[in-house]
Amino acid sequence: MPKQEYPLAFLAEFLGANLSGDSKAVIKSIAPLTSASSGSISFLEKTQYKDQLKTTEASAVILREADLSFLPKHINALVVADPYLSYAKISSLFNKSPNIDPGIHPTAILGKNVIVGSNVSIGAYSVIGNKVQLADGVVIGEGCAISDDVVIGENSRLYPRVVIYYGVKIGKRALVHSGAVIGADGFGMANDKGKWEKIYQLGSVEIGDDVEIGANTTIDRGALKNTIIEDGVKLDNQIQVGHNDKIGAHTAIAGCVAIAGSVTIGKHCMIGGASCFNGHIEIADQVIITGMTGVENSITQKGIYSSGIPASPHLNWRRILVRIMSLDQIAKRLQKLEKIIFKEE
Amino acid sequence: MPKQEYPLAFLAEFLGANLSGDSKAVIKSIAPLTSASSGSISFLEKTQYKDQLKTTEASAVILREADLSFLPKHINALVVADPYLSYAKISSLFNKSPNIDPGIHPTAILGKNVIVGSNVSIGAYSVIGNKVQLADGVVIGEGCAISDDVVIGENSRLYPRVVIYYGVKIGKRALVHSGAVIGADGFGMANDKGKWEKIYQLGSVEIGDDVEIGANTTIDRGALKNTIIEDGVKLDNQIQVGHNDKIGAHTAIAGCVAIAGSVTIGKHCMIGGASCFNGHIEIADQVIITGMTGVENSITQKGIYSSGIPASPHLNWRRILVRIMSLDQIAKRLQKLEKIIFKEE
Amino acid sequence: MPKQEYPLAFLAEFLGANLSGDSKAVIKSIAPLTSASSGSISFLEKTQYKDQLKTTEASAVILREADLSFLPKHINALVVADPYLSYAKISSLFNKSPNIDPGIHPTAILGKNVIVGSNVSIGAYSVIGNKVQLADGVVIGEGCAISDDVVIGENSRLYPRVVIYYGVKIGKRALVHSGAVIGADGFGMANDKGKWEKIYQLGSVEIGDDVEIGANTTIDRGALKNTIIEDGVKLDNQIQVGHNDKIGAHTAIAGCVAIAGSVTIGKHCMIGGASCFNGHIEIADQVIITGMTGVENSITQKGIYSSGIPASPHLNWRRILVRIMSLDQIAKRLQKLEKIIFKEE
Repeated sequence: MPKQEYPLAFLAEFLGANLSGDSKAVIKSIAPLTSASSGSISFLEKTQYKDQLKTTEASAVILREADLSFLPKHINALVVADPYLSYAKISSLFNKSPNIDPGIHPTAILGKNVIVGSNVSIGAYSVIGNKVQLADGVVIGEGCAISDDVVIGENSRLYPRVVIYYGVKIGKRALVHSGAVIGADGFGMANDKGKWEKIYQLGSVEIGDDVEIGANTTIDRGALKNTIIEDGVKLDNQIQVGHNDKIGAHTAIAGCVAIAGSVTIGKHCMIGGASCFNGHIEIADQVIITGMTGVENSITQKGIYSSGIPASPHLNWRRILVRIMSLDQIAKRLQKLEKIIFKEE
Repeated sequence: MPKQEYPLAFLAEFLGANLSGDSKAVIKSIAPLTSASSGSISFLEKTQYKDQLKTTEASAVILREADLSFLPKHINALVVADPYLSYAKISSLFNKSPNIDPGIHPTAILGKNVIVGSNVSIGAYSVIGNKVQLADGVVIGEGCAISDDVVIGENSRLYPRVVIYYGVKIGKRALVHSGAVIGADGFGMANDKGKWEKIYQLGSVEIGDDVEIGANTTIDRGALKNTIIEDGVKLDNQIQVGHNDKIGAHTAIAGCVAIAGSVTIGKHCMIGGASCFNGHIEIADQVIITGMTGVENSITQKGIYSSGIPASPHLNWRRILVRIMSLDQIAKRLQKLEKIIFKEE
Repeated sequence: MPKQEYPLAFLAEFLGANLSGDSKAVIKSIAPLTSASSGSISFLEKTQYKDQLKTTEASAVILREADLSFLPKHINALVVADPYLSYAKISSLFNKSPNIDPGIHPTAILGKNVIVGSNVSIGAYSVIGNKVQLADGVVIGEGCAISDDVVIGENSRLYPRVVIYYGVKIGKRALVHSGAVIGADGFGMANDKGKWEKIYQLGSVEIGDDVEIGANTTIDRGALKNTIIEDGVKLDNQIQVGHNDKIGAHTAIAGCVAIAGSVTIGKHCMIGGASCFNGHIEIADQVIITGMTGVENSITQKGIYSSGIPASPHLNWRRILVRIMSLDQIAKRLQKLEKIIFKEE
C-alpha cells in the first residue's frame, strides 16, 4: 500500500478539472461532505445538497461550475462537468487494497501446457488445469480452482476461492470476486416417467472485457451454445445467470437477481436487486428494471419497468390482501352495478 | 476427453430409435435446429417448430413418427417417442468435461479411519476429516472440505470447493457443484430479553441417490432431526434449504429458491425460480409452483400455484399500486353503492 | 466429541430449573415430544401442544409451572420460565460438532507480522495475510483466505472456505459459516457516456461481538465509510449486505434477504426470509418484516410490515392478475358510478 497523498494540482490534472484555490493543498482521503475533515476531498453530486457545503470540513470539493458560488471561499474546488464521475475516477488513487506481487506461489499447482503471461500472480493453493491460458498481468487469488482449457485475458483478477469450470473464456480487465462460480452445469433435464434425466451441458461461458462479477455470483455454462456476458457488464453479488443467457454490453445488474435460462438482456440495461427473469424471454436495450420486479415476458421497448410492492403495516396489508384475493368478485359486482345504472339512465 | 464421434446407427441403437436414412452418417455434435451444421444432430421437441426442419443444416434430426413427413428427404432421422428425452440421453455422449483420473492427490489430507473405496479420486488441497467413508468411484474436487463422519455413496462427485459439515450422508451418483455448503447450522435461536441464544443444531443432513445440487446452494443441518433430500431431487444454484426441511423424491427446484425451516415438499414437485417458502408448511406431491411465488401456507392438492406479478411500465405500475393500497376503501365504496342501488330496486 | 450424558440434576442446575422427579435420570439427547424416546429430554413450548405430553416417551420434559399438571406422573420435569430458551441453553451440551484442537496446521500460510493469540487453531490450507490479528481462542477452518490487516476477536470461529478481504474487523465469539465472503467490493460505479467507471471501495467492514453469519452470505465493504454489523446480529445463509449498510444490534435476518447499499436497519429487528431492501433507507428499531416483503421506503415506527402475496391456484391467480392490471380503470368506473348515484340522491 503506497502512501496515498496527492497535491490538489495533481488531482486537477488527473481529472482535467479547473482548480480554484490552493494547488498545493495535500489530499489524503475522500469523504462525504458531511463527514469530511481536513485533508479530505469531497464532492457535490447534486445541487440540492448544496447546504452541506456550508458546514463541510473538507479541504477541497469537486463540483460543477454552477455550484461553485455556494462553496465557502476558504475551501478549494475542482470544477468538473460530472462530480460523481470524477469521484469515481479518483477513487482508484486512494484504493487501499494490498499490492499483489507477480509470481507463482510454490504451492500453486499447474497442469500441463499452461501458458502463463508476464507479470502473472498465482496465489497459494490455487489449482490450474491443463491447457489454461493466463495472459499478462493476470492475478489469480489464493485457493482458486481453474479447470482445463480456461482462457483469462490481460490484467484480469480473480479474488480468492473463485471456481472456473473447463473451457470458460474471460476477457481483459475482469474482476471476479470470491466465491463466484463460473461454468457450472446449467439446470437442464428431461422427465422420464417421473424421473429426471440429466441434460449434459455442452456449451461454455464467454465473458467479454471489463466485466466485474460479484461475490458468490454463479454463471452457468450453456446447454448447446455458450452463455455470454458482453463487454463492460457489471454483476453484483449472489446473482444467478442461467444457461444460454446473454447479457448485453454495459448492462449493470444489482445483487440477488435470478435469471432463468435462455434469457437475452440488452445492452445498457440497469436491473434492480432481487429481480427475477422468466426463461426464454428477450429484454430490449436500455431497459431499467426496478428492484424485486418479476420479469415474466419479453420487453421490446426501452423504459422503466416494475412490479414490486412496497411494505405496509401488516394489518393493513392483510386487509388489502383479502381484497386482492376477491378482486374478481369485486370487478363482477361493479359490472352488475354498471348494468343496472346505465340501463336506468 | 475422447473423440466424440458416433455413426448414426450407434445413436439409434443407444436410443432404441428407428433410423431413417444413412446409418453411417457421422455425428460429431448436438445443436439446435436453427444453428446446426453438417455433422450435427438436432431434435424437434414440439410439432409447432416444424418449419425449422425446412432450413436446418443438421445431418440428422430426432423426432416423433408423426413429424417425420415434415423432414426434408436429404436429412437423416431418428424416430423416437420423446425427442427431448432422447436428446437428454445422448447429451452424455458428447460431454466434454475433463476426465478425472482415480487417485488421491499427494496434497489431499485425510483424517483417521477414512474408508476410501476403489477408483476414488480426491483432488489437490482437499481436506477429509476422520471416519469419513467414500464409496467406490467417488470424485472429490480440488479444495473440498469434508468434516468428520461424512458418508458419500458410489460414484458421487463433488466439484471443487464444496464444503460438507460433519455427519452428513450423501447417496449414490450425486453431483454437487462448486460452492455448495451442506450441513451448516440451521438458523435457530431463542430470544433472551432481547439477545439471541443460539440453538445448537444437533441433527444432520441425509441426501438420497441421484441428487444434483447446484453451485452455491446451501442445505442446513436439522435442529433435532435431520434435513432430508430424497432420491432424484434436482436443486439448481443458490437455493437455500432450511433446517428440518424434507424435499420429496424427484422434485426439481430452480435457482434462488428460499425454503425456510421445517418445510415438507412432496414428491415430483416442480418449483420455479426465486420462489419462497414460509416455515412449518407442507406441500403435497406433484405441486407446481411458478417463479417468484410466495408460498405462505400448506398446499394439500396437486396443481399449479402462483403469486408472481409480471412487470409493467413503471408509471402504469405506480398508478396500479396507488389503487392496490386503497383497495379496502374501493371495496367499501362499492359496498356502499350496492346498498343504495339494491335498496332502490 | 465427548460422551454427552448428563444426570437430570446437572441439567436442572445448569438451567436454574426446579426438578420434579428422578434427579439421577440420565439424559442422552434432546428430542421433540412426538419423537422422543427413553433417555431424551423434550420441552413444551406452548400450552396448546399439551396433549403431546400424554404420549411422549421422553424421560424428562422442560415446561412451565402452569403446564406441570398436564405431565404424566412417571415423566420427570424441569420447571422453568421459558422452556424454549431453556432448550436453547442445553442444546450446547449435546452439540456433536467435532472438537477443534488448537494449533497451526503445517500447511497454513501466515504473512508477515501476524499476531496469533493463545489456543488459536488455523486449519489446513488456510492463507493468512500480513499484519492479521487473531485473538485467543480463534478458530480458522480449512482453506480460509484472510487478507491483510484483518482483526478477529477472541473465540471467534470461521468454518472452512470463508474469505475475508483486507482490513475487515470481526469481534468476539463470531461464528462465520462456510462460503461467506466479507469485505468484497460494494457495487459502486458512475456512468461515463454509457460505460461504467468503477468506484473503488475505500471503506471496510466492522462486525461486533456475538455475531453469526450464515453460509454463502456476503457482506460488502463500504464505499467511503464502513459497513457495520453491530453486536449480537444473527444473519442466516445467502444474505447480501450492501456497502455502507448498518445492521443494528441483536437484529436477526433470515435467509436470502437482499439489502441494497446505504441501508440502516435498527436494533432488535426481525427480518423474514427473501425480503428485499431498497438502498438509502432507514428502518427503526424493533421492526418486524415478514417474508418476501419489498421494503422500498424508510420505516420510522416499530411494528410488523409486509407486502408478500400468498400463492393461489394458478388459474385463480391469472384471473386476479387481469383485475390487478386493470385496477385503475376499475377505480375510475367506480368513481363514475358514484358521481351518478350521489348526484341522483
